[in-house]
Amino acid sequence: MDAKYGKRVVARGAVDDKGQVMTFIEAFRAWHAVHGTLPGRITVLLEGEEETGSPNLVPFLQANREELAADVCVVTDTNSWNIETPAITYMLRGMLYLEVTLHGPSHDLHSGMYGGAVLNPINALTRILGQIHDDRGRVQFPGFYDDVQPLSEAEREQWRGLGFDEAGFLVGVGLKTPRGEADWTTLERIWARPTCDINGIWGGYTGAGSKTVIPAQASAKFSCRLVAGQDPQKILAGIKEFLNARTPPDARWEIKTFGSSPAIKVPVDSPHLQRAMTGLADIYGKPPVLIGAGGSIPVVGYIQQILGFDSILVGFGLEDDLIHSPNEKFELKCFHNGIRSHAAILARMAGD
Amino acid sequence: MDAKYGKRVVARGAVDDKGQVMTFIEAFRAWHAVHGTLPGRITVLLEGEEETGSPNLVPFLQANREELAADVCVVTDTNSWNIETPAITYMLRGMLYLEVTLHGPSHDLHSGMYGGAVLNPINALTRILGQIHDDRGRVQFPGFYDDVQPLSEAEREQWRGLGFDEAGFLVGVGLKTPRGEADWTTLERIWARPTCDINGIWGGYTGAGSKTVIPAQASAKFSCRLVAGQDPQKILAGIKEFLNARTPPDARWEIKTFGSSPAIKVPVDSPHLQRAMTGLADIYGKPPVLIGAGGSIPVVGYIQQILGFDSILVGFGLEDDLIHSPNEKFELKCFHNGIRSHAAILARMAGD
Repeated sequence: MDAKYGKRVVARGAVDDKGQVMTFIEAFRAWHAVHGTLPGRITVLLEGEEETGSPNLVPFLQANREELAADVCVVTDTNSWNIETPAITYMLRGMLYLEVTLHGPSHDLHSGMYGGAVLNPINALTRILGQIHDDRGRVQFPGFYDDVQPLSEAEREQWRGLGFDEAGFLVGVGLKTPRGEADWTTLERIWARPTCDINGIWGGYTGAGSKTVIPAQASAKFSCRLVAGQDPQKILAGIKEFLNARTPPDARWEIKTFGSSPAIKVPVDSPHLQRAMTGLADIYGKPPVLIGAGGSIPVVGYIQQILGFDSILVGFGLEDDLIHSPNEKFELKCFHNGIRSHAAILARMAGD
Repeated sequence: MDAKYGKRVVARGAVDDKGQVMTFIEAFRAWHAVHGTLPGRITVLLEGEEETGSPNLVPFLQANREELAADVCVVTDTNSWNIETPAITYMLRGMLYLEVTLHGPSHDLHSGMYGGAVLNPINALTRILGQIHDDRGRVQFPGFYDDVQPLSEAEREQWRGLGFDEAGFLVGVGLKTPRGEADWTTLERIWARPTCDINGIWGGYTGAGSKTVIPAQASAKFSCRLVAGQDPQKILAGIKEFLNARTPPDARWEIKTFGSSPAIKVPVDSPHLQRAMTGLADIYGKPPVLIGAGGSIPVVGYIQQILGFDSILVGFGLEDDLIHSPNEKFELKCFHNGIRSHAAILARMAGD
């Protein structure tokens, strides 16, 4: 599904953004239908492996460095501020995803004959993972916050002015109580603070009814969202130090990593970003707000590192799109605004 | 599979004791073949639901109280001390088995968009279950140790004299380090101390690779082994108090119980127990040792409560039988000793 039009802008959409990526394609199609050509060389890059760690993306970028050369990349994988207010995302959290297994006894044991006298890997794993956060919600991996680039007071001030509906954000997922690292607002927690969430856990008997087993092992998947300044490899070393310091006698860890990417912060004074802002204003009648995003879009980092240019993140999703959940949606109004916006941004970028 | 011979002794074997229960049956068959009759009225009760909480056993005992009336019950579901030394088990731990689910957000969430700012049920569940034990291995449920019947110094002394091979016990399951409640030996921990083991845990994404999800819920199964004096209902109340005191805002527990039985302690001066000891000595050439067992055999409690008589626990399993594991075994020598022993016990009991 790779379509090539020339060299100017690289576009991309992930699995949860099937609607978003079509805004791009449709904008180019419309432009081409009206003008018979495009205003510059454009490469469209569609990548469908992001959610599984993009194993082929880096080799692909490396192998096609020349063909993919451009001035800037426009990524369509983020949200509008709301259905009437466009947004450009200039901060994206990075990610480090791990799977750990704690191995104990050589085989599953009867909890009556061994319970209370031998290592139980589930008891041990919950005890260790239960120490990831302290009582103030701070992640306890050694060095975790050492390199975090602090938010400026200007950024905090601008975000406070956005009028974020915290209650609505929570009610949308059946909750009422803000939660997380102390001394930060919900927006700051999602956009600018590093976190650790356990994404999966399993061990022992998980079927119906009961089985009195002490299993030979227990496993969990967990991931850290990283912010600007944090080096995923250094964070991984801190996690291993944390786990190893807590390994029970006779136990051993098996650790796998699935995906590792640094956070992104795009300079707000970039001329490309300024042009994208003007293009969005042309369609919405007001300039976009500059925001952060909690999710990771690793390709932005790879494009910077391998191809050597910045990305502008302009997307048209909404907070309640239920991405990665049943009944995911992408609204028609967002779809149409997205198509018009991409055409307008193209015009502004072609206006040099 | 119920066989009825008369009224004197009730016998029983669980799923993991297919070999053991046959020692009983074969002893009666042999006796009958030699003598043409049995030395008294004997009822054989085979129960196959123990590992799933025996849902039909209590109603069955209640409905057949008269037919099941006897002087004593002989249960064949325990171990010899070793292949050459018989044992009578006079202490059996009870059990309380729970499944708990911690419900949080209304649906699964993307950890990028929500991570660090909302309740993650796996983070919370590991944090809560990780507090079940303190640093000295003591269970933290309120009131957990209040009613524990203390071991006498004589009992501790007798057990120390058994020459228990702790290193061998651990090596057999791939471990080296004794573990559990501080200030108790391994035998005491298994036979006479209450414990809590997590038997299963699950939540979020548990397949191959990665998925950046914050799940709506997380679950665990865990069980307490109880000792003489502890009331399962009181322990359950303590567990609920422990969980409720730690419920995160906006979360709720769903709690199911699977099986609940008090511990058993048979008086060592019972004449039936003395006769069983003599019968075992007739076969092995030495008296049995009196031991405890970590597993639960709830029927012993039900027989005491509903039918009103004690049980004598004589079994022929070995420590390395791998019960509840792959490659479970019951040795032929144990099988033959068991058959002879049951015939000898029958003779001693018939000798009144």
